[in-house]
Formats: sequence, C-alpha cells, structure tokens
Amino acid sequence: MTTVAFIGLGIMGGPMAANLVKAGFDVTGHNRSPDKVKALVEAGGRGADSAAEAVRGADVIITIVPDSPDVEEVTGGDDGIFAHAKKGALYIDMSSIRPDVSVRVAQAGRDAGLRVLDAPVSGGEAGAIEGSLSIMVGGEPEDVEAARPVLDALGKTIVHVGPAGSGQTVKAANQLIVAANIEVLAEAVVFLEAYGVDTEAALEVLGGGLAGSTVLQRKGPNMLAREFAPGFRLALHHKDLGIVTSAAREAGVVIPLGAVVSQLVAALVARGDGGLDHSGLLKLVTELSGRAKDKE
Amino acid sequence: MTTVAFIGLGIMGGPMAANLVKAGFDVTGHNRSPDKVKALVEAGGRGADSAAEAVRGADVIITIVPDSPDVEEVTGGDDGIFAHAKKGALYIDMSSIRPDVSVRVAQAGRDAGLRVLDAPVSGGEAGAIEGSLSIMVGGEPEDVEAARPVLDALGKTIVHVGPAGSGQTVKAANQLIVAANIEVLAEAVVFLEAYGVDTEAALEVLGGGLAGSTVLQRKGPNMLAREFAPGFRLALHHKDLGIVTSAAREAGVVIPLGAVVSQLVAALVARGDGGLDHSGLLKLVTELSGRAKDKE
Amino acid sequence: MTTVAFIGLGIMGGPMAANLVKAGFDVTGHNRSPDKVKALVEAGGRGADSAAEAVRGADVIITIVPDSPDVEEVTGGDDGIFAHAKKGALYIDMSSIRPDVSVRVAQAGRDAGLRVLDAPVSGGEAGAIEGSLSIMVGGEPEDVEAARPVLDALGKTIVHVGPAGSGQTVKAANQLIVAANIEVLAEAVVFLEAYGVDTEAALEVLGGGLAGSTVLQRKGPNMLAREFAPGFRLALHHKDLGIVTSAAREAGVVIPLGAVVSQLVAALVARGDGGLDHSGLLKLVTELSGRAKDKE
Amino acid sequence: MTTVAFIGLGIMGGPMAANLVKAGFDVTGHNRSPDKVKALVEAGGRGADSAAEAVRGADVIITIVPDSPDVEEVTGGDDGIFAHAKKGALYIDMSSIRPDVSVRVAQAGRDAGLRVLDAPVSGGEAGAIEGSLSIMVGGEPEDVEAARPVLDALGKTIVHVGPAGSGQTVKAANQLIVAANIEVLAEAVVFLEAYGVDTEAALEVLGGGLAGSTVLQRKGPNMLAREFAPGFRLALHHKDLGIVTSAAREAGVVIPLGAVVSQLVAALVARGDGGLDHSGLLKLVTELSGRAKDKE
Repeated sequence: MTTVAFIGLGIMGGPMAANLVKAGFDVTGHNRSPDKVKALVEAGGRGADSAAEAVRGADVIITIVPDSPDVEEVTGGDDGIFAHAKKGALYIDMSSIRPDVSVRVAQAGRDAGLRVLDAPVSGGEAGAIEGSLSIMVGGEPEDVEAARPVLDALGKTIVHVGPAGSGQTVKAANQLIVAANIEVLAEAVVFLEAYGVDTEAALEVLGGGLAGSTVLQRKGPNMLAREFAPGFRLALHHKDLGIVTSAAREAGVVIPLGAVVSQLVAALVARGDGGLDHSGLLKLVTELSGRAKDKE
Repeated sequence: MTTVAFIGLGIMGGPMAANLVKAGFDVTGHNRSPDKVKALVEAGGRGADSAAEAVRGADVIITIVPDSPDVEEVTGGDDGIFAHAKKGALYIDMSSIRPDVSVRVAQAGRDAGLRVLDAPVSGGEAGAIEGSLSIMVGGEPEDVEAARPVLDALGKTIVHVGPAGSGQTVKAANQLIVAANIEVLAEAVVFLEAYGVDTEAALEVLGGGLAGSTVLQRKGPNMLAREFAPGFRLALHHKDLGIVTSAAREAGVVIPLGAVVSQLVAALVARGDGGLDHSGLLKLVTELSGRAKDKE
Repeated sequence: MTTVAFIGLGIMGGPMAANLVKAGFDVTGHNRSPDKVKALVEAGGRGADSAAEAVRGADVIITIVPDSPDVEEVTGGDDGIFAHAKKGALYIDMSSIRPDVSVRVAQAGRDAGLRVLDAPVSGGEAGAIEGSLSIMVGGEPEDVEAARPVLDALGKTIVHVGPAGSGQTVKAANQLIVAANIEVLAEAVVFLEAYGVDTEAALEVLGGGLAGSTVLQRKGPNMLAREFAPGFRLALHHKDLGIVTSAAREAGVVIPLGAVVSQLVAALVARGDGGLDHSGLLKLVTELSGRAKDKE
Repeated sequence: MTTVAFIGLGIMGGPMAANLVKAGFDVTGHNRSPDKVKALVEAGGRGADSAAEAVRGADVIITIVPDSPDVEEVTGGDDGIFAHAKKGALYIDMSSIRPDVSVRVAQAGRDAGLRVLDAPVSGGEAGAIEGSLSIMVGGEPEDVEAARPVLDALGKTIVHVGPAGSGQTVKAANQLIVAANIEVLAEAVVFLEAYGVDTEAALEVLGGGLAGSTVLQRKGPNMLAREFAPGFRLALHHKDLGIVTSAAREAGVVIPLGAVVSQLVAALVARGDGGLDHSGLLKLVTELSGRAKDKE
C-alpha cells in the first residue's frame, strides 16, 4: 500500500487528503495549526506533529501551502522535508507559487535524492471536495506517470505540460486569463446595465457565442446579483498576479491587459476588498462608472 | 406566404437570405453590387434593382449592411426603405451598428408606420451558412414574437434583450468581451512559449478550468500555429471597438481593459494587419515581446 | 481703427474682449446670456443683441464658445456669422473644438468669402486676464500675420503651427500631455506618501531634474494640500480627451497612455467629480490606493 | 582634510570622483574593472585594489554601482565595506536601487557602527561632469548635514527627503514621472505628425503652456529628429520601472500609467532596443501607429 505524507490541510488540502484516504492510500497528514489534522484522522488518516515526522518513510509526499516562502521553508533546512524523506520518494508540490522558486525547489529535491513534480491545481474548494480538480503538472515524464494513481484520486484533468516549474507557469497563465476574463465581463455588465438592457437575457445570448466562457457561465449570475462571497479571494488572486507580472517581466513578455487588470485587483485589495470573490472586480467597475449607489 | 425583402447579400447576408428561401419564405433580395443577387436567384429567390423596389409590399424587411451610415442611407431619404415599405411591415436591421444610431433609425421607422427591431448576430460566416447564429434582439416584445419564424430560420439562440437599440448594445458588449478574451489568451500563449511549456497541453488543461472560453477552444489551436486567416477581420473588430468605446464614454461607463485592447487592435490596423483574423492580436504580443523572429 | 466682433464673453472670452478694448480696438461683444455683455460695455466696448448684429461690418470676428456644435451653430445658418460678416473679414475661432469640425468650419467660412483661422488658447483664466495666453494658430500664413495685432493683445506666445485645423490639433495634443503629466504626478505623490517621504521636499528635488514640469510647479503644491478648486474642470478635460481619443483613432495613432488617462478622467466625471480641477485625478489615485480616509 | 573612499567609477561615478578631487578632498577610488581607476589617479586621486582597501580609515565612503545586489555585495560579507570601514564613518550610497534594499543596507551599516545615507542622483552624465546633479537624500538630519560639503561638490539641488530609503523612493518616483512624461510626449508627437502639423512650432507653443516639461525641452528636439543615442538607456529605465512597480505593489499604491508605460519600455527592451535613449519610446509609438517607414 502506497504511503502518502500530506503537508498542508487547509481549504484545499483538507478535502484532497481525505480523497486520498477514500482512494485507499495510507495518508499521514501534518498542518501548521494542528486542529486540521483531527479532521483527517476522523476521515481515516493519521496525524503527525511535524513535516519531518510525516514524511519519514513515505512513498509520496504532497505539499499544498499558501506561498513561495512557505514551500521553501517546509522543504529546506534541518527540519525540512528534504532532510527527512527517504531516497527515491516522489515529492509533489501542489501549491501555487513562483515558477522560478518551483524550479529551485525541484533542484534542491533532486539533490536530496527525491523525484520532484510541481502540480498546482485549478477548480477551487468544490473541485477539491469532488476530486474534480484540473492539475497542471511539471517534471519528468516518468515521474508524472508514477504520480498518476495519486493525482487521479484528486482531479479529473491531469496534464503534463513540461519540465520542472511548468505546472506553475501554466497556473500563472491560468490566473492571468481568469482575471482578464472576469474584468472584461464586469465592464460589459456595467455597460449593459447603463443602457438598460435585460442583463440576464444578454448573458444568455453572449454565453452562446464567441464571448462565452467558463467565467461567464459560473460567475455571471452572481455578478448580476452583486454576490461576491468567495469562492476565490481577490487577495489570493492579487498574490498570483504578482507572480504573473514578475515572471512575464523576467522573460521579456509584454502583457498589457495583465498589467492593467493587476492594477485593478491591487486597488480592490488596497481598499479593503481583498476578502471578496475575484468577481468583485465588478464592484470597482461599478463604482468607477459612478453607479455604486444604484447597485450596491 | 410571408414575403421578405433582404437588403445586403454579402458574406453574412447571402447565406442568410438563402436559408430564408429554404425555410419557405418568398425572398426578394437587393445588393449594392448586383452580382450577389444572382446567387440568391439561383437559390430560388428573386432579385430587385433597388432597395425601394425590393421592399414594396414586403411583410418583413431585413437589412444587413456594413456600418451605421449604411443603415441610415438605405432606410432614409426618398429612395429609402422607409419611404417605400408598406405600413405595418416588420423591419429588422441585422447589421452591427452604433446603438444610438439604431435607436434613431427605429424611431424614424416607427414614424413611417413600421414595426422595427434591431437584431445583430454573432457566429460568423459558418453560423450564417448553418443557420446557427446567435441573435440579440432589441424592440417591442410583440414585434419580437412576430419576427420569430423568420429569425428561427437564421439562428439557434434568439434572445430578446430589451427595447430598441438593445440588440446593438449587447453586440457591442460581445465584441468588447471577445477582443479582451483573445488578447489575454495571446498574452498567456507568449508567456507559456517564453517559458518553454508544452503549449498544446497547456491549452488543454487551461480549457478545462476557469480559464476556459469559446475563444480558447475555437481560436487557440490556430493561434498556436500562427494561422491568422479570417474569420473575423481585425479591421471590422476595430470598427466595433470604436462603437464600444464611444458608447461607453456616452454612458459614463469606465472600461479600462476595453480601452487598452482597442489601442492594440488599432495598432494592428494602423500597421496594415487589418485583414488578419482578430486572433492576430497574438502577432502583436509576439512582436512586442521580441519573439517575432522565432515564431513567424 | 480696427473693429472687432467678439462672440462668447465667458470666463475666458470676457477678459479677452476687455484686453482688446484696452489695446485700442473698437470691440462689439455678444453673449448668449446677456448679463456678460454689460461688463464689456462698462470696460469701454459695445454690446450687440445677436451674433449677426455684432459681426456686421467688423474687420475681425472672434468666437470663443464651449464646444464643436456651438461653433457650428454660431457660424452657420441664416442667423449665423458667415451669413452676416462682410467679405474679406478675418474670422478667428479661439474655442477648443474637434480638429475635423474646425477644418469644416474653415471651409464654410472661406466659401462665404472670409479669411479663417483657428486659434485655441492655453493658460487658463489667469492667462486670459493677464493677456499672457499661449495661442496655437492654424490657417494661411498671411492671415496669421494679419491677425497678429489682435492676438498680441491676448497672448504672449503666438505660434503658427500649420494649415486650418492645426491649432485645434495642437490644443488636443496639449490636453493629452497635460492629463498624463497630472496623472503620473498623482501616482508619484501617492507613492511618496505611502512610503512616508517628505513630499514637499520631494517635489522640490523632482522639479529640479528631468521630472520637472509646469504641471508639477503649478499644480503640485495644491495637490499635496488636496485643494481641487478649479482652475480647469475635469468635465472640460473629459470633453477634450474625447476629442483627442477620437482624432487619434481617425488618424490611426496609438495612444496607450492617452487611452488609460481618459478612462480615469471619465471615472471622475461619472462619479460626480467633474467640477473639480483636473489635478483632482489625485483624488482617484488616492482612493484606488485605499488611502482616501487618511487624506481627505 | 576629509578622506573619501569612492567605489564605482563608471559613467557617473568617474566624473563625480574627479569633482571631489577638484573640490579638495583626498579621494581613493576603486572600481571592479581597474582601468577606470587610472583616470582618477590622473585626476589627482588615489587607487585601491579592493573596496576593503579603499575604505580603510576613510571619513566618507561613497558607492555608486549598477543595481541592488551590487550594493549588497560591496557592503556585506568579509570583504565588504561594512567589515572594513572605521567606526563613525559616513557611508553614502548614491546608486539607484530598491528602497527596501536601501533600508536593509542602512540597518546593516548602522549595526556596523557607521552613519548611513542613501543619495541617488538625477541629471545624467552631463550633470555628473558639471557637478550639477539633483541629489535626493534619505537618512538622519545630522548625517545629511555632515554630508553636505561632499554633496555640494557633486550637485546643485541637494534635498533631504526623509529617513533611510527615502532618497531611493524619490528616485523611483522620478523615474516613474520621467517615463510617463516621455511616453505621452511621444504619443503627442506622432499625433501631430499624423495631422501634418508643424511639429517644431507645436513643441514651442506646447512648451510655453501647461504642457511644458523638462522632458519636452531637453528631449523634444531629438525626438522630432528621431535621434535616440543615449543619454539614459531604456534598459536602465526598465530596471528602474521594475523597482517602481514592485515598490508600488508592496505599498498598495495603484499606478495605472506607471503599469502601462512599464509594459512599453519592457517591449522596447525585449525587441532589442534597450541601448537606445529612453526617448526611444517614440520609436515604439511610431511603429504601433504604422508610421515606421515614413519616419525611420
């Protein structure tokens, strides 16, 4: 039976670890705040007091933690994963972090005798619970194959997109596209409202043509209703757009829409709206268009 | 048998008129350059030498011409549609024009005793041929009902979105969303290429998540291949973005992404790329990122 | 003694007409709201009840009215200037209007036997009162020379910039530059404040280097104090940026900064801040950066 | 006699060190590539083989090196300035670097018993040679006073703008303003050219009004002539805009124009134009407007 160490049992990691238990893996979980471990134990897994303890002897090690420095901290140092994992173990980082950090972590892992993948996810809390995440995987082909049984228990679309760090690059591109698709939908919604159009009917017909998108379908109705409970918080999307803009800059890639939508997301966060769903971009467009009072 | 006058037998209007013939309508067509009329006659319709002649006695009159001034010209004046149509006829303008002009034309039509709808379409030449267009209809509810048999022969998604002009407003919103969705996809593609990611695999996984869109699905593969044969030409999208930006300005709606993508489309047209498909935005992003030589 | 008809005795036109009286011209003024005429009469000029009456027999005719349609209205038609001016009179439009309208008006004026210049001004109410305006003149060289005695009484920098309409084009460029210079200064100010820098000292040193500008010098101190009493109102700058963006579009000129700053000015106007000085762009940047409460 | 150690004898540092010799200071210089040291020796200074040797016993230590990591390297570690400077020496970093790094370096310097100022400059090579630089100084007031005799030999406008790091913050703001002022001038120039205006006359009248700026005055004529020899290279301005955008992001300051102009500068660098003067932004605007062939 494959043993899995799972570090990071938050909103995403908690249900993902539970899905691995359900799929028959022997899962030992660790989390910085220990109350989350309890839920895993109740679901049939085991708990560990430290990452070092969790990974000892594990065949597969998964981390899903908030940001780049967290991954570096949990993997490196005397108490870190790489110092305590068995040689040849498969390390899969499912956090969304900077591609360059991901490449550096992969190198450090390989230096420690591990096989390493980056495999960030898309699909949100619902996808984590249902095991229907999209998973974008970077690393060596044979390691991706080795990881498939585990990843299959977590997601529906699992695609190998290139060498180490590539998963993070694709995730960054994902966040770029999503932000712009939301923002332009927000601009369209305020435009339609300003002209007194039936916006529900409009979204129906827009969704049926070339303007259709998953954002329009999933976020549109809540946007019309100005319901901005997350979902995916603007503060996190802000972090991700920081990754995109600096990675684009590093590579000499010019992203004018990305740059502008990053400013708009930054504005919402600066104003204290970082806790809203990212579709809350509509709130800003509404206010900038002087329509705040009518609508909210 | 309902008689239909059809003015404007171009890339879109030609197959649409033919579909009406197929659906059993008695169609008389007129076109500025008369060679297009011949095709309609071969398909079983009749030809007319002038708009005035075409509309005389018709139950339903359809126009689909390039731009706002064309609609005003073909409807107004002594030789225009409104001077020669029978009272109570149903006039449907399926061109994509300025919403304010559409409202003005509707008023003039009503003053001349007609019932008037604006019903621009989305779906391109393919949709026109297959009769699968999305049609966004503005006007009075009872007139929309009266028009349904005709519109059903032309499209698949027919949605009444509000009073006169609303169809044009929704079409403008459609063009706004499509332009931004293409541009941000272009930015993402160059970003992925710069990092050496497997872009086909990346588009697959992106398409399966919140970044998915009709643009990604339909335009993505051609974009990766740098095939920019139209499709929908940048020059036309440029015209439409002129409508969007000035209509947004009139209504006090702030559209930062719309403004930026309009500049990028304008640049392509200014440089002589107006004949490319609108996915040709990728060409500009590629060049701005200094990657033109590798890729094209 | 040269007789001058002066149409439009507002904030700018009033003191300009008075300066012409002071300089020894025989000035007959007309204004839509007649109370402004009284001030001119008190200053030594004469009043007229209509534009037609004012221009009859005048050697020089000056208009300075709010917008493009106003110029077309006051010059055209049976009651208009062109129908009543004497042949060979010199017509100088000092309004800030669309360059294409200016070209059209010039043609109509020449058709009516007049010599025509466009000569919009920069320098504000203070410049109008002091006679220190900058005047950008479009038209034929010999007409510019003929106009110099009059223009010298109104401004300090009088430059012939090209054929008919060129004055308006340069004025449009002026408004483009001013808007962006204000906006980027606003961004810099909020940036400096956020880092706790001594902003007065900072503006001093910035003004001494390559970042120096007339905007920084004249608007900077009031901006630091958040004093936004006009000066030049955002609503008017919004009108002017509409001229710039559509003229740039017509000519295929790509103006990314112009497009973005136009959106920001539009936002302020949409929100109800159109009555503030254009340096009020700082208010928006402050709020977007979540610093509104600290500062205003 | 005050002894000065001067580290970094490049385009800026070389003439600055020579000015200190002229002003009567006892200057010992060090440079990574030693040939620059020779020029200082010829000017009357002394050379040192290492930074450590140069600073030993010096009353004042000045660094002016390319980027943030260079400052950290030259100050830190066993061979670094802080390990070898005498207690109480005054350390002035005149490089243009990240404000946060500047704060960190200042703390490290104070921990090593030094007094520390950040004092980046504006004014270019000409200002360095003439001793007419603008110098924006961050640090403790008494240290600024102590540094004045030295700074007076280097610049004309020396302003204390706040605590440690503030000089760098103001320099970042300077680069933000300059970039946008150049870009909008470029947009205006292409706009004027497209309309056939006399651009030299136009710049004259624009410079006399609210659109006037040091950029217009110093860069305008070369821009009209499309002479883009540096001056200040786009590649360096690109580095500086990276500092601005990330520092703005850190502080939650929204800079839409800054974000857009950063993309344009990045495009020029990506395309291989990083060696042009920053007024080369005009080259990009010209090309985006399809006017490249006429003009260059």
